[in-house]
Amino acid sequence: MSVQPVLINGKLTDSPAKKQFQSTNPNTKQLIDDQFPISEWDEIDACLESAANAAVAVRSASRETIASFLEAYADAIDANADALVAAAHLETGLPVSPRLKDVELPRTSNQLRQAANAARTASWTQPIIDTKLGIRACYQSLGPVCVFGPNNFPFAFNSIAGGDFAAALAAGNPVIAKANSSHPLTSFKFAEIVAKILPASGLPAGMVQMIYRTSHADGERLVSDPRLAATGYTGSRHAGLKLKAASDAAGKPFYAELSAINPVVILPGCLKERCDALIDEYATSGLMGAGQFCTNPGLLVMMSDATGDAFVAGISAKYKAAKPGTLLSPAVGESLTKGVSSVQNAGAKLLVGGSAVSESRVAFENTILEVPAKQFVADSHAFQTEMFGNAVLVVRCESVDEMVSVVKELEGNLTGSIYSAKDGSDDAAYDQIAPHLISRVGRMLNDKMPTGVAVSPAMNHGGPFPATAHPNFTAVGIPASIVRFTKLTSFDAVRPNRLPDLLQDASPISSLWRCVDGQWKTGHLS
Amino acid sequence: MSVQPVLINGKLTDSPAKKQFQSTNPNTKQLIDDQFPISEWDEIDACLESAANAAVAVRSASRETIASFLEAYADAIDANADALVAAAHLETGLPVSPRLKDVELPRTSNQLRQAANAARTASWTQPIIDTKLGIRACYQSLGPVCVFGPNNFPFAFNSIAGGDFAAALAAGNPVIAKANSSHPLTSFKFAEIVAKILPASGLPAGMVQMIYRTSHADGERLVSDPRLAATGYTGSRHAGLKLKAASDAAGKPFYAELSAINPVVILPGCLKERCDALIDEYATSGLMGAGQFCTNPGLLVMMSDATGDAFVAGISAKYKAAKPGTLLSPAVGESLTKGVSSVQNAGAKLLVGGSAVSESRVAFENTILEVPAKQFVADSHAFQTEMFGNAVLVVRCESVDEMVSVVKELEGNLTGSIYSAKDGSDDAAYDQIAPHLISRVGRMLNDKMPTGVAVSPAMNHGGPFPATAHPNFTAVGIPASIVRFTKLTSFDAVRPNRLPDLLQDASPISSLWRCVDGQWKTGHLS
Repeated sequence: MSVQPVLINGKLTDSPAKKQFQSTNPNTKQLIDDQFPISEWDEIDACLESAANAAVAVRSASRETIASFLEAYADAIDANADALVAAAHLETGLPVSPRLKDVELPRTSNQLRQAANAARTASWTQPIIDTKLGIRACYQSLGPVCVFGPNNFPFAFNSIAGGDFAAALAAGNPVIAKANSSHPLTSFKFAEIVAKILPASGLPAGMVQMIYRTSHADGERLVSDPRLAATGYTGSRHAGLKLKAASDAAGKPFYAELSAINPVVILPGCLKERCDALIDEYATSGLMGAGQFCTNPGLLVMMSDATGDAFVAGISAKYKAAKPGTLLSPAVGESLTKGVSSVQNAGAKLLVGGSAVSESRVAFENTILEVPAKQFVADSHAFQTEMFGNAVLVVRCESVDEMVSVVKELEGNLTGSIYSAKDGSDDAAYDQIAPHLISRVGRMLNDKMPTGVAVSPAMNHGGPFPATAHPNFTAVGIPASIVRFTKLTSFDAVRPNRLPDLLQDASPISSLWRCVDGQWKTGHLS
Repeated sequence: MSVQPVLINGKLTDSPAKKQFQSTNPNTKQLIDDQFPISEWDEIDACLESAANAAVAVRSASRETIASFLEAYADAIDANADALVAAAHLETGLPVSPRLKDVELPRTSNQLRQAANAARTASWTQPIIDTKLGIRACYQSLGPVCVFGPNNFPFAFNSIAGGDFAAALAAGNPVIAKANSSHPLTSFKFAEIVAKILPASGLPAGMVQMIYRTSHADGERLVSDPRLAATGYTGSRHAGLKLKAASDAAGKPFYAELSAINPVVILPGCLKERCDALIDEYATSGLMGAGQFCTNPGLLVMMSDATGDAFVAGISAKYKAAKPGTLLSPAVGESLTKGVSSVQNAGAKLLVGGSAVSESRVAFENTILEVPAKQFVADSHAFQTEMFGNAVLVVRCESVDEMVSVVKELEGNLTGSIYSAKDGSDDAAYDQIAPHLISRVGRMLNDKMPTGVAVSPAMNHGGPFPATAHPNFTAVGIPASIVRFTKLTSFDAVRPNRLPDLLQDASPISSLWRCVDGQWKTGHLS
């Protein structure tokens, strides 16, 4: 059983770490052979030093150099798809198709190509030019960024290949990737590709590095180290908040996606109009990927009437009939068991499921819990415990006013959906509820489930705390996701030839939009 | 000696507070008659409740209502200029002219009018429209904002009238102003104006509120209260970091401006070229307002050669000859004494001044300290202690390489300036130093002192920690300063008639720039 190397300063390097760990195949509950080091401080320190050097050296790299690296990486990922998919399937249990091979992997290489395009066209820099006062500003690279990837997207949010990685690198920042501990082998496969293509890229050796795991104390030391500029974190709220506290105390941006239950409000007219269709739509979204999406709809708000009963009966039948999906890891299984117990202990009634599936794989029965609105409102924090996986809490209301009172208790979420009748009969209720929901979510949906996050400049994959750590930023959507890893820099009376080329009178990029004296335009200043 | 009222829920209200405080006239060191309450939690709680209600109610207010209030407020401030100037002069010692009456007051009402214009034209919302995927996004109001104003701008950054106030309100957020304790009477004069014009404005009663002082514990409770959305803080680093920690733990944005020493690097060729002019320019900027500006140039980096000696001799003569300005308050005097001692104890040599002026007013001798570059680098944290006021540390270098090593030790700052020769002889040195300086400051200047912060969309009055708490945001410059107090909200498949009017196909504001499928444009969607 070999111990796999870390990626430091451009090279796959054997780690001197004394301790190792292994990941688990959730389809067999068996440990996977490969061992991975738990890096100690000396190794992390070497990463930071190399990243700090790279942050200076990369300033002389061209936009084209960064873009070409991201494209070469995307191509190499596509070329190594089979090995990546095999590793990810082994470690996460996620289906090869439809999912890892035909959805998530192409999405990942596509994201890298979009980031390359943003790097080349500098669309994330948003130049602002005040010709009268002689002040010009734009976003610029920030410095070394540490990325913690989540367990549920071994490709698209992988710390060395996913959205945060692509965003941080596109802005010209060195990345220290902290692999997710549940898929180190998949992450290693990415690191192998990087180690092959980085040397010829023209980028500094410390531009992309990866370690697998650290002690909690070293993790906090890493995110607060003076050489690090910012952190992108997607993962559990508990671990995230500890890292955030360390990073906050050091005054560094900590972009975190922590947890969300993504409320879906189904108004009474809509349910009368198309109950069966809603049952299908909800059950498909709720059980997709065994519910292991950041945008999984984990809270349903609906009336406590006969149509509501029919809906609940309908999804209950579907939840009972569907084979529970395999969960990502034993830890996810344990956390789901705990989450469901918490919500049950708070007083919710178990309608379907509620227990781990006693099989040789990691799985939990498809689960539905129910609670009356009054009870939810009385102990709303407990009822908003995240049950990451294939479980949902249905809140039953006696009136639209009660629906409003439920929505007013909601914590910050990534998304909020409202389903309403096509004939306008729910419109008054919509107007009552929507303003309260909008102020609590990053993305508002109508007649649509929240699973599925399009990579669009208008996407907000973000939201008020505790969904994320800052309500102004999105983790998905280029160029906005890149802006997280930048600093605003203003140039006041700086001599024209010393300005960044993007701020000079002659625009170096014909497609670049610049706000000049209040007007957005492309091309040279006249 | 009357106790002045707080402004809660639209009314000037006598406070039940058990303790009071008074401000001091720094020109006489005498307490000013008026007493001000130290609010207890019940009163703060009432503010929060009223602000939370206002945050909901204001959603039905039009952009025009918010804009008209800000304009009426600006007009009323101009109409009450004499009373405001008298109070501010009494409490801060700042000169009536040139400063309070002819510079800062007009700037303050002008800022409010600019914010009114932004509210009316929605320029801060930055709509992004993806017509193909049916996703549209913009910035929206965030919720109640608490503003802590600094001591050094009793008008332009006053918590109930200044930049953060105007920015938060323009976005449609209720403001709880926490008056600066060194000018409560000035703040009260503003609150009196608000109490007169708010009732007729059409805005909710809780839209603008003000308290004067709280215990430290209640301050931390205030900024972390679930009803509060964000905080804008300008003030001392020590107090700011305590509030920031409380706010961070609650997951709320805490926009802070904490401290800066604003390095000025003077390259050798420039000094040879125009030593006398630089002496004038530096001394004017350094002593302006007794050095009590966030952008005061408090650190000079220059060569240790004969021209450098001449420069230091020149500013020393000016510093000795100029009458020390009155400091804002006894607390500022104490903190300056401490700061100068710290830098002296670290090993800097005192060239000029160094002691409090023993007079009947609060003042400190114009002070110049000096340290060799090597010594600075060896203990750079101690030598970067802020000396807020009329004191400067000169770092003397043996070479350009030493200048680089000094710059590489700098913490985050609001500004950084480089002076270089007009004939190009400093250009190589500039290229060596500038990249390191740019990455550490929010605003880079050439051949210009940092004092004077123009209100421009391209201005960045911000910078990396500890200058501020987040490197992406500016506190000055509309509309960018407004974006701090907003949340990004995405609308996915939301029915067209339910979209915010700014995101509908027909644009409600002809001047509004929207990014439609990657192209910035005004007008309706075609």
